[in-house]
Amino acid sequence: MSAATLIDGRPGDQVSVAERALQYGDGLFETISCVDGAPRWLPRHLQRLRLGCERLQLPFTDYEVLAQEITALAGAGSAAPARCVVKVIVSRGAALRRGYGPTGAERPTRIVSRHEWPAGDPTAPLHVSLSSVRLGTNPLLAGLKHLNRLEQVLAQLARPPGIDEVLMLSSRGEIIGGSMSNVFLADQTGLFTPRLDACGVAGVMRGLVLQASRARRPVAPLRFGAVRVRRVMPSELPGVREAFVTNVRWGIRSIGSLDGRALASDDYAQQLRRQMDAAQ
Amino acid sequence: MSAATLIDGRPGDQVSVAERALQYGDGLFETISCVDGAPRWLPRHLQRLRLGCERLQLPFTDYEVLAQEITALAGAGSAAPARCVVKVIVSRGAALRRGYGPTGAERPTRIVSRHEWPAGDPTAPLHVSLSSVRLGTNPLLAGLKHLNRLEQVLAQLARPPGIDEVLMLSSRGEIIGGSMSNVFLADQTGLFTPRLDACGVAGVMRGLVLQASRARRPVAPLRFGAVRVRRVMPSELPGVREAFVTNVRWGIRSIGSLDGRALASDDYAQQLRRQMDAAQ
Repeated sequence: MSAATLIDGRPGDQVSVAERALQYGDGLFETISCVDGAPRWLPRHLQRLRLGCERLQLPFTDYEVLAQEITALAGAGSAAPARCVVKVIVSRGAALRRGYGPTGAERPTRIVSRHEWPAGDPTAPLHVSLSSVRLGTNPLLAGLKHLNRLEQVLAQLARPPGIDEVLMLSSRGEIIGGSMSNVFLADQTGLFTPRLDACGVAGVMRGLVLQASRARRPVAPLRFGAVRVRRVMPSELPGVREAFVTNVRWGIRSIGSLDGRALASDDYAQQLRRQMDAAQ
Repeated sequence: MSAATLIDGRPGDQVSVAERALQYGDGLFETISCVDGAPRWLPRHLQRLRLGCERLQLPFTDYEVLAQEITALAGAGSAAPARCVVKVIVSRGAALRRGYGPTGAERPTRIVSRHEWPAGDPTAPLHVSLSSVRLGTNPLLAGLKHLNRLEQVLAQLARPPGIDEVLMLSSRGEIIGGSMSNVFLADQTGLFTPRLDACGVAGVMRGLVLQASRARRPVAPLRFGAVRVRRVMPSELPGVREAFVTNVRWGIRSIGSLDGRALASDDYAQQLRRQMDAAQ
């Protein structure tokens, strides 16, 4: 699966069966896009990881060495391809006793692995539909990229043929985002994206888009105001003119069809892509 | 942490970092009580595991060899103690690609480990309080003993000193059960236990208690009707006269204090214990 893996800094591909990430999904992860041998938006990934560790009371502190390992793997090998993905898992560590409650003395384990950049046309608009799998809500976990991902696994298992990504609703019936992406929607009132205070993952690319839309001195002038972050209901979908999903691999990826209805507009996505390219 | 572990039948204590149980919590587990070298209620554990595999579309089929491994570990060693715990994890297997969606060709991994029986007085009534950590709801996962357990980890982290177990509410505000147990409550109308159709784990001991209460020809005559399985709200707690929690390690364990209020009655628990002992 991976070309290279470091476990607590040492090459390897095995971990203890006592790892709490394995036993309970007790940990966090990051998926980092790497271009020309360097990780992109690394400070943002580390910032989200830090927030997750605080919220889970997971006493990981080795951010500097982790950043070095990510950078090393991103540029590893003389024949490093132009793009790759580096994945980080931070587990609370090997359990010191059986049971959900950690002792507090566990030593967190970091797993850093390099993966090939997925094949496929990176600009083709996506076919997106609504998933029948909903997301349970828990404000304590909302926004975090934690390792409890069975709902996303089930959503992928239920993804219909020909559909690239599925939008998931919360158990309250609100649209939250894609199974592996965040979603932005535009209707006649402008651009908006779901609140993630009850469930969902606050993606790094989502944060970049929100920041770009709020910039006071945009490199390219924005014709629209800040993206509104709000509750989004499925009943709003018929009024949507344009939609895109975001993650660090896809960037800003236009939705060509949403629940079977073609979306022709790409205006917001194009403008945001131009602005973010210019800002780098 | 464990005295002995079998991974796909071979002694070992390491698994691949590609295991989907580690990457996404994509798997199930069972915790089996073993007495005098033999696992108790093994068919029920395997039945719940089978249900979980079906619901998660996890193509595990090696139930017979798994049963043999559990039995072997339960009785392993000439100096095997009278009681031990055998834990089973079934992971969907090592990922064949990155991403939430399995290919369908993964080979499930089984991890069977023997653990010491926890110390402590097994009959002392427990001090129980309500947790501030709630359970997200998802009917697709409700009842299963799956590996996405961060909510239980957070509940244990927030467990106050002197409290043995915490009762968790769903995000809808209903009482679901303990962080590592099911709960039964009695008021003037009789004995009842929460429905688990939205979240929670349907414990093996809970199933045994429900079966005992429904027995048409009980070994010892029951003075009460079948336990009612229904929605339970925290507002009902002041009317509760007796309460107990169940899991295969605790059996039927009385609650001595519930959210600071002493509960003196032990009638239902004693009668159920007698009946279940006599039925064996």
